[in-house]
Amino acid sequence: MPRSLVLLGCLTLAACACPERAPLCPTTVPTPGPAATSEPAPAAGLGDTDEGMWLLNEFPAERLVRLHGFAPTQAWLDHVRESSIRLAGGCSGSLVSSRGLVLTNHHCAEKCIQQLSTKQKDLTEAGFYAASAADEARCPDMEVNQLTAIEDVTDRMQEALAGASAEEFATRRKAAVASLEQACTTSDAVRCDVVDLYRGGKYHLYKYRRFQDVRLVFAPEVAIAFFGGDPDNFMFPRFDLDVSFLRIYDGGTPLASSRHFAWSAAGAAEGELTFIAGHPGSTERSLTVSQLAYRRDVRLPERLLWWSEERGLLTEWSQRGEDQRRLARSLLFKRENAIKAYKGRLAALVDPAFFARKVAEERALRARVAADPALAASVAGAWDAIETAQAARRRLHHHYELVEEREGLESTLFSIARALLRGPEELAKPNAARLHEFGDANLPALKQALFSSAPVSAELETLTLGASLVHRREVLGPDDALVKKLLGTEEPRELARRLVAGTKLADPKVRQALWDGGKAAVDASQDPFIELARRIDGEARAYRQSFEHEVEGVETRNGELIARARFLAFGTAQYPDATFTLRLSYGVVKGWSDAGRVVAPFTTLGGAFERATGKEPFALPQSWLGARSKLALDTPFDFVTTNDLIGGNSGSPVFNAKAEIVGVVFDGNIHSLGGAFGFDDQKNRAVAVHSRALVEALAKIYGAGRLVEELGK
Amino acid sequence: MPRSLVLLGCLTLAACACPERAPLCPTTVPTPGPAATSEPAPAAGLGDTDEGMWLLNEFPAERLVRLHGFAPTQAWLDHVRESSIRLAGGCSGSLVSSRGLVLTNHHCAEKCIQQLSTKQKDLTEAGFYAASAADEARCPDMEVNQLTAIEDVTDRMQEALAGASAEEFATRRKAAVASLEQACTTSDAVRCDVVDLYRGGKYHLYKYRRFQDVRLVFAPEVAIAFFGGDPDNFMFPRFDLDVSFLRIYDGGTPLASSRHFAWSAAGAAEGELTFIAGHPGSTERSLTVSQLAYRRDVRLPERLLWWSEERGLLTEWSQRGEDQRRLARSLLFKRENAIKAYKGRLAALVDPAFFARKVAEERALRARVAADPALAASVAGAWDAIETAQAARRRLHHHYELVEEREGLESTLFSIARALLRGPEELAKPNAARLHEFGDANLPALKQALFSSAPVSAELETLTLGASLVHRREVLGPDDALVKKLLGTEEPRELARRLVAGTKLADPKVRQALWDGGKAAVDASQDPFIELARRIDGEARAYRQSFEHEVEGVETRNGELIARARFLAFGTAQYPDATFTLRLSYGVVKGWSDAGRVVAPFTTLGGAFERATGKEPFALPQSWLGARSKLALDTPFDFVTTNDLIGGNSGSPVFNAKAEIVGVVFDGNIHSLGGAFGFDDQKNRAVAVHSRALVEALAKIYGAGRLVEELGK
Repeated sequence: MPRSLVLLGCLTLAACACPERAPLCPTTVPTPGPAATSEPAPAAGLGDTDEGMWLLNEFPAERLVRLHGFAPTQAWLDHVRESSIRLAGGCSGSLVSSRGLVLTNHHCAEKCIQQLSTKQKDLTEAGFYAASAADEARCPDMEVNQLTAIEDVTDRMQEALAGASAEEFATRRKAAVASLEQACTTSDAVRCDVVDLYRGGKYHLYKYRRFQDVRLVFAPEVAIAFFGGDPDNFMFPRFDLDVSFLRIYDGGTPLASSRHFAWSAAGAAEGELTFIAGHPGSTERSLTVSQLAYRRDVRLPERLLWWSEERGLLTEWSQRGEDQRRLARSLLFKRENAIKAYKGRLAALVDPAFFARKVAEERALRARVAADPALAASVAGAWDAIETAQAARRRLHHHYELVEEREGLESTLFSIARALLRGPEELAKPNAARLHEFGDANLPALKQALFSSAPVSAELETLTLGASLVHRREVLGPDDALVKKLLGTEEPRELARRLVAGTKLADPKVRQALWDGGKAAVDASQDPFIELARRIDGEARAYRQSFEHEVEGVETRNGELIARARFLAFGTAQYPDATFTLRLSYGVVKGWSDAGRVVAPFTTLGGAFERATGKEPFALPQSWLGARSKLALDTPFDFVTTNDLIGGNSGSPVFNAKAEIVGVVFDGNIHSLGGAFGFDDQKNRAVAVHSRALVEALAKIYGAGRLVEELGK
Repeated sequence: MPRSLVLLGCLTLAACACPERAPLCPTTVPTPGPAATSEPAPAAGLGDTDEGMWLLNEFPAERLVRLHGFAPTQAWLDHVRESSIRLAGGCSGSLVSSRGLVLTNHHCAEKCIQQLSTKQKDLTEAGFYAASAADEARCPDMEVNQLTAIEDVTDRMQEALAGASAEEFATRRKAAVASLEQACTTSDAVRCDVVDLYRGGKYHLYKYRRFQDVRLVFAPEVAIAFFGGDPDNFMFPRFDLDVSFLRIYDGGTPLASSRHFAWSAAGAAEGELTFIAGHPGSTERSLTVSQLAYRRDVRLPERLLWWSEERGLLTEWSQRGEDQRRLARSLLFKRENAIKAYKGRLAALVDPAFFARKVAEERALRARVAADPALAASVAGAWDAIETAQAARRRLHHHYELVEEREGLESTLFSIARALLRGPEELAKPNAARLHEFGDANLPALKQALFSSAPVSAELETLTLGASLVHRREVLGPDDALVKKLLGTEEPRELARRLVAGTKLADPKVRQALWDGGKAAVDASQDPFIELARRIDGEARAYRQSFEHEVEGVETRNGELIARARFLAFGTAQYPDATFTLRLSYGVVKGWSDAGRVVAPFTTLGGAFERATGKEPFALPQSWLGARSKLALDTPFDFVTTNDLIGGNSGSPVFNAKAEIVGVVFDGNIHSLGGAFGFDDQKNRAVAVHSRALVEALAKIYGAGRLVEELGK
């Protein structure tokens, strides 16, 4: 499963590479997304539901005609593709004007909003509106991608991997990917990713325009963007204006965007056909049963436990004062959001009926394979091999995850130190032999993060690093060799204090000097974080290599075999599991019912005033209370559709058959969380802000005439 | 499973009734402990291992002769029984002098030690030694029980339950238990419990002397009692002096204890036969597969998640200052301990091989039942009925557990308020119809807690109650009817602050007055906690009733059927699952090996000095550092044995065949945690303080000559 693509719900794919501080941590090639039929009945194809996160270059037009009577043209699909954008940090968005204006969620811009805040002016609390172009504020480290081309490179990948032994597989695959990406990446303004679809069944090369000058245009107060807070998160009815506007700049001026979505005058109506174009991060609908059991038994509970503990820490720390509250907010939201999302996933896997269906599906596919001697000869062993890899996972995952994967030590400063330490060594290697995050295709993102002007809070770093070190000692044990290297005889929290107090790496100029100074400069550095990174680097790299070879390589290689068996069994009427690449889903505006309770598809602006208690998280901001009398309270506020989606879809446009924006996705309902493993059209719903509510608020609450005009309203 | 008996590891059964504030929360009749064969192979009996927590009145003497060549006499067993004591809060102990001196663990007395501490004098940090009898300090709410008689009441229970319908079962069972206990309880100095063994296969009536005047005599500093802290908890090698001495007073003077253990001069030696008499709290070795799956999938992960969050909260709150550190310590220890214990349990259940063995065992027993038409007619449906009850559990458990079971709202003041509110109503009913905690047999414990002089920290109450209310809103949802009754439109933390600031219930005199005033006084009370308890009482009682009838009643009734099938299949060479009643286990002093690493059975005093880093939790107290040169550093410190044990065994004596104390149990190794579901003699070990280390420390570090002399050394 794509380890670099972790769902961190609220439909954010919070950070492509790692939940916190994206591009500084390993962003190795995502292992292939599994094939994704998720048959409602064993050995059957898709039912007549709105299931599917479809590739734009393999869109099932006939299926759409049959289900909803609409046939998209190639021009329509191209228009959608080029009008959709990806926020590299883990979200989706859309171009909504000819001057590079981007519509996305508030929570997708939250990191930027917080980075632009100061002790004096908390933009998360207060909101932000650039009344003039000059007021638009550059986000310190945001990257936006626009997909310009997709090329099928399956043949070239299969050729490169033909006959690879189990030992060679991971290495040869990495080299082939790096080589294809390098040839495609003609400049820093181009980003190329080889995407493995159907768990290695196909490989496509995605080519993007890369933009790193992105500016904040508008954000409402968090009190209305996230009205209802964690209790209402993933729930419906809902009353959130979870939107923000950004603008892409190119060469210092707004991007001239000939492609963009138009704005619907009426917005979404009940029963209307809706499309969502976005970047669902990761689904696991066709994992094997042993892989699902590992998630149910180990991965989900372990992550939930640690996040819950961190949540407690951050919650209590936030109570110390306004500063702490502001500093911790973004991370705390991320943790709470991830906890709820993972609980939803876990709920699906521990549902006996759901798991039994997965078992039955696998049994049916294995029976088909067994019945065909030729197929059986090559594929029959794949499930057992993957099961063996799960045992290796159980043995290796702690060291790998706690010191190497993601943030390493959950510390921005440590991630920076490690990138500085490894940079000279990695860049001296040929592209194909480097750790993936140092590959030519990924360097611009790494450098953006490394030299970002975003402030690093010493206080918060000390808190999270200290807790992370205590956690590592707990999980690996005080007598573990690596723990001893990490801690020496120091108390973990004291060590964190000493490291943070002694480092100069919070200053981007210091980082730049070390980077520019190359190996000699880094070798000479006595910065305590560099010293720490150096002390454990050998072990960390070794754990990564073991994990890639003994676990990921085996899963990928055998997953490909299973994917081919699936193609033989079910043909091509499938969509691949989500891979944080552009997908198109269809559905209709429609409520659902749950344990006898009927949930209507719309809420209204007036409903927000009814739900408000005046106490967080149910307190409306002053701007809303003051504007109440001016508002059309029956304006639709939030709504739900049957579109299939998952984390990473946050900020996706909801549009009609005329490619007009009728809303913006910001959430899924609680049932949609199980969508990680399978789609249930009776209950899974996408949750969006209605386009009319947005215009009503911009015009009557925020006085954002400049924006309303630009939207063409 | 005995819901009132929850393992809270470190071998404490932290609070018989609830993890925190024991006797104020519902202590309904434990549902029967399951039969406990835990066959190593399906359908086989016990192997030739030291497995078993044996009843003293059904001790397998022949088996012991065969395995270890020792045959205990009835007199020997009686001596052991009367020399062993139970700490009602969830621990074990032993009488070790003729003047009522009790040996137990530091962590078993920790609540008392903290209650006796003040802002000026933190006894947990500093330790405590009563140099004279007059200095012995009374614990505010400790109860100690000494088992005086066991009577088999199986026939009477079965008669009372004969022909009960599914609906009647729980009610009739409760009435029969209450009636038997009432007849036995001749005064407040007598405690009688009907104990259901083998999941209703047998019922025994346990009669205890009850002591509520218990005084603290000696406790070392927590730094050595819990040296290594959470990282070393459940680990070995270990270097902890986790002991304390208490004294039972009877009528204001030390109890004259004709029965007590003698002290071994040599202490435990490698390979020596050892006995442990104690009160293992709860094992679940013969639950059905559906019950185990519920634990694996729902109960263990959910509790772990909430405890982890609380751990984070408390950890961070403790960093605010010395006061907070002192106030939170006991609760934080309990949470960390419980987290580690439950992680160990979960690790056993998610081990594919372990779970597969449980599935195979059940399949074998069901096959035996199916092969016998008469048996099949009565028993074959029991497994499916229990599986259906698990579905009811999934539906009902949140409301039940979060508002009614255990502490209700995890607030001492709320528990007090609820006891005051319910008291008049319950006491007006006949004994058999009351909620169990108001039954005559339980009233003394309830009153002791209710009128305890132990201080209640307003600050800590506000913290934990606030977090608990947030948690309830999260789990049940903000629109849940009960949540609305709890919170109204208030923010949960603000509500907690208001309640704690406004209540008078922290004063035991106020509680006494309300209790004495009866219904009129309680009805007239406007205390905010009483008002809150009143507001939700109807719902809370209703949820309890549903849970008892739809879940526990079904499990008990069908569990009895399965227990009978087990008796038919395996005869009586079994021991019942643990029920926090006196059990005797046997074993030998012996290390183990783990992934190629050989773990020796002993550590030495010198080893503690080698492991010390000077930083918590690896910092030795000053008293030890100062006395180093006087100590015989090769004295055995801690050691391990193959005895079978589980949480609740904390403080149990380890003694030899002459009934001489050779050590005191304070922990199990990490493998022993899986012992909740099955015993593995290769790896499960009990961990104890060696008797010689204790005497060496008392004499040379603590100058506790009075104690050494009393021990007869």
